[in-house]
Amino acid sequence: MEKGKDIHVGDRILVKQAKEEIEGILLESHEAGIVLVKLNSGYNIGVDRSNILEMNVVKKAEKREEKTEEFEISHKKPVIDLIMTGGTISSSLDAKTGAVKALTSPAELFKFYPEIFALADIRVISPFMKLSENMGPEDWSKIAKQVVKSLNDPAVHGVIVSHGTDTLHYTSAALSFFIKNLNKPVALTYSQRSSDRGSSDAELNLLCAAKMALSDVAEVMLVGHASMNDDFCYALPGTKTRKMHTSRRDTFKAINSTPIAKITRDKIEILREYNKRKTGKEAKAELDDSFEEKIALIKFYPGQDPEILNYYAKQGYKGIVIEMSGLGHVLTEGSKNWVPVIRELVKRGIFICAACQTLYGRLDPMVYSPGRELEKAGVVYLKDILPETAFVKLGWVLGHKEWNAEQKKQKMLENISGEFNERLGAEFI
Amino acid sequence: MEKGKDIHVGDRILVKQAKEEIEGILLESHEAGIVLVKLNSGYNIGVDRSNILEMNVVKKAEKREEKTEEFEISHKKPVIDLIMTGGTISSSLDAKTGAVKALTSPAELFKFYPEIFALADIRVISPFMKLSENMGPEDWSKIAKQVVKSLNDPAVHGVIVSHGTDTLHYTSAALSFFIKNLNKPVALTYSQRSSDRGSSDAELNLLCAAKMALSDVAEVMLVGHASMNDDFCYALPGTKTRKMHTSRRDTFKAINSTPIAKITRDKIEILREYNKRKTGKEAKAELDDSFEEKIALIKFYPGQDPEILNYYAKQGYKGIVIEMSGLGHVLTEGSKNWVPVIRELVKRGIFICAACQTLYGRLDPMVYSPGRELEKAGVVYLKDILPETAFVKLGWVLGHKEWNAEQKKQKMLENISGEFNERLGAEFI
Repeated sequence: MEKGKDIHVGDRILVKQAKEEIEGILLESHEAGIVLVKLNSGYNIGVDRSNILEMNVVKKAEKREEKTEEFEISHKKPVIDLIMTGGTISSSLDAKTGAVKALTSPAELFKFYPEIFALADIRVISPFMKLSENMGPEDWSKIAKQVVKSLNDPAVHGVIVSHGTDTLHYTSAALSFFIKNLNKPVALTYSQRSSDRGSSDAELNLLCAAKMALSDVAEVMLVGHASMNDDFCYALPGTKTRKMHTSRRDTFKAINSTPIAKITRDKIEILREYNKRKTGKEAKAELDDSFEEKIALIKFYPGQDPEILNYYAKQGYKGIVIEMSGLGHVLTEGSKNWVPVIRELVKRGIFICAACQTLYGRLDPMVYSPGRELEKAGVVYLKDILPETAFVKLGWVLGHKEWNAEQKKQKMLENISGEFNERLGAEFI
Repeated sequence: MEKGKDIHVGDRILVKQAKEEIEGILLESHEAGIVLVKLNSGYNIGVDRSNILEMNVVKKAEKREEKTEEFEISHKKPVIDLIMTGGTISSSLDAKTGAVKALTSPAELFKFYPEIFALADIRVISPFMKLSENMGPEDWSKIAKQVVKSLNDPAVHGVIVSHGTDTLHYTSAALSFFIKNLNKPVALTYSQRSSDRGSSDAELNLLCAAKMALSDVAEVMLVGHASMNDDFCYALPGTKTRKMHTSRRDTFKAINSTPIAKITRDKIEILREYNKRKTGKEAKAELDDSFEEKIALIKFYPGQDPEILNYYAKQGYKGIVIEMSGLGHVLTEGSKNWVPVIRELVKRGIFICAACQTLYGRLDPMVYSPGRELEKAGVVYLKDILPETAFVKLGWVLGHKEWNAEQKKQKMLENISGEFNERLGAEFI
């Protein structure tokens, strides 16, 4: 609230500065001294309070109608299981008062998101509530178990998983590997901020996730804002997506890949090939969540001592993903040469693989001699995989104790859940 | 060469497939079974050999004229010192024969790049020749020493540093911190490929670097292709740029920042404010290359054990950059809680700071409680800095033993060489 004036978050205001006037909706600002305004374009702009000459209300905020009727399952609409796991999307909705509150009942959700309840009967399930940076492989397993249970319930049309953003792309990769024979849509969604109800990205993201959950697309997808405006979402591939901005609503980007679908409030536009919903008795999703937790991800930096590899080996680690520079390089000369250390660890049965530090593009160990040396020492080059997806896949593959060393290598190089884009490359050579 | 036909790299060819015909210049291909063609648009396209029905020469390659007259310094043109340090740009130019050859004499360069010799008298200096993934802080120091020497030679107009791409953004950050009172332009450049002379990006990159070296812009800049076409370059800021693709010519991107200038064969278009060339007796560049090599960069991943921090501490490391998730988070609950480990190490005088794993955006520890806890434990949040730049800056700051702990923290948070974009953010909140 603006002191001394009757201006509140949600009001349409006119901000006068020396050179320009700005009109828009007043948002809650996290930064002291900054007045945050949502423009008609959908963009938010921060105005330094010290530059403001005058600020007036153009139109008071309309009170958001809170549905007072009791929430009820209609038994007439398709059913979506909404698996809530925490994060901004399911908490902090009342940022105005600063109170953090978990929303886990359908009745509470109904108040905030009546639109998705118009589309489907929403059953809310919450295996746990966590910030996503606190999640790990055990949590991925818990989520996968619940997703499979829901997918195999004949009453369920599709599944939404709501989740914090920080590690959502790890969880989407985990579900992509942990669930075999996927029969129905699994849409992971999130919100980046819920600074006030007007500016929250949660409503559109949830609505688009619900639309995808009801669609024909039987994929693990990450559904959320496609731009900074509140106009449409993308459904992004579970193994080829990464959080690329600390705070933007369109933080998730497909890397070395493209969105599966564009979703507006009106329709779904399919953008490429996808796996279709399966029906019949054969169409049962299966859980395959074996996971080796003794794995590490190392991002190589100049001058780095390869002793870090020996450290992990001594701690009993079974596999390491190295985020290498360029086409897949690390230090290969002098006293800090990585080649002999890697050769020795690979001999001792530790799985060492490479992903790209550049994120975009494809590894190619054959172009320069360091790559050839590293490959000869036993590094498995994982093509155009994301480092985060490589980490999850390595844990999953090494978790399968029934596979021998050669099978594990084959599995790491096999395109199991779209983690490699075989079509990528020719245009970039 | 195409077997049985008189088709050679450099020839204009017509490739007939069942559904389409492609015309362009035949390039050397690194992938077996792929015919690589440079289209008129400047794009390269790879065609699967098995899909080709017929392939014919439209126009034979013109023999590239190798200048036979002796190379000579004119003493009439402005002087550029070209500091060659290795990488694709200064070797492997004869990829057709597979021979790798270092080019370090002006006479050799003159044969390949006559255009830059028309602009300036080029003096070639090579302190060492290395692949950039094998470089470390000592090499940054050697390069900086030579750059400062050249900058302080009254005869020199500007400096070019040619370098491998893998870690070029680390070196550009290092030069940005190591050189104080920069008086003239320092343009770092590279090439991504030299698969054949026709497709190499080296010529345009070197030409644009030379133009920047002669310009009024006294900044450490990374000069190279701005798009996949061979049409123009950007001069990118030394501390805000990162290699973002394994193989594309426009691999370097300004992150949380914008290019300083656009350079075509005809002109330089300045895109934003910059520091101007300095003249007079005061305009002496100074070397300030103190560096603490006992520093590490850790990319946080879900479920990661904070013991890795204790490992580095035991090895005598003085500082650690943690690439954190989201707005600046790591595990803050359960048996792998990072907070107590960080608190203890900070107490013992180890400098721990945070950069963004998302690369884009700005850290903000105040939004969620884990950030607040981590900041309280002593993590220094480095705003919108790149992780790679944070690593270099940390080594440089900790190298200054004359600064006390509080001064080091202040220096890490001070915008010393454009590593923070203070204007970033408001529009993204």
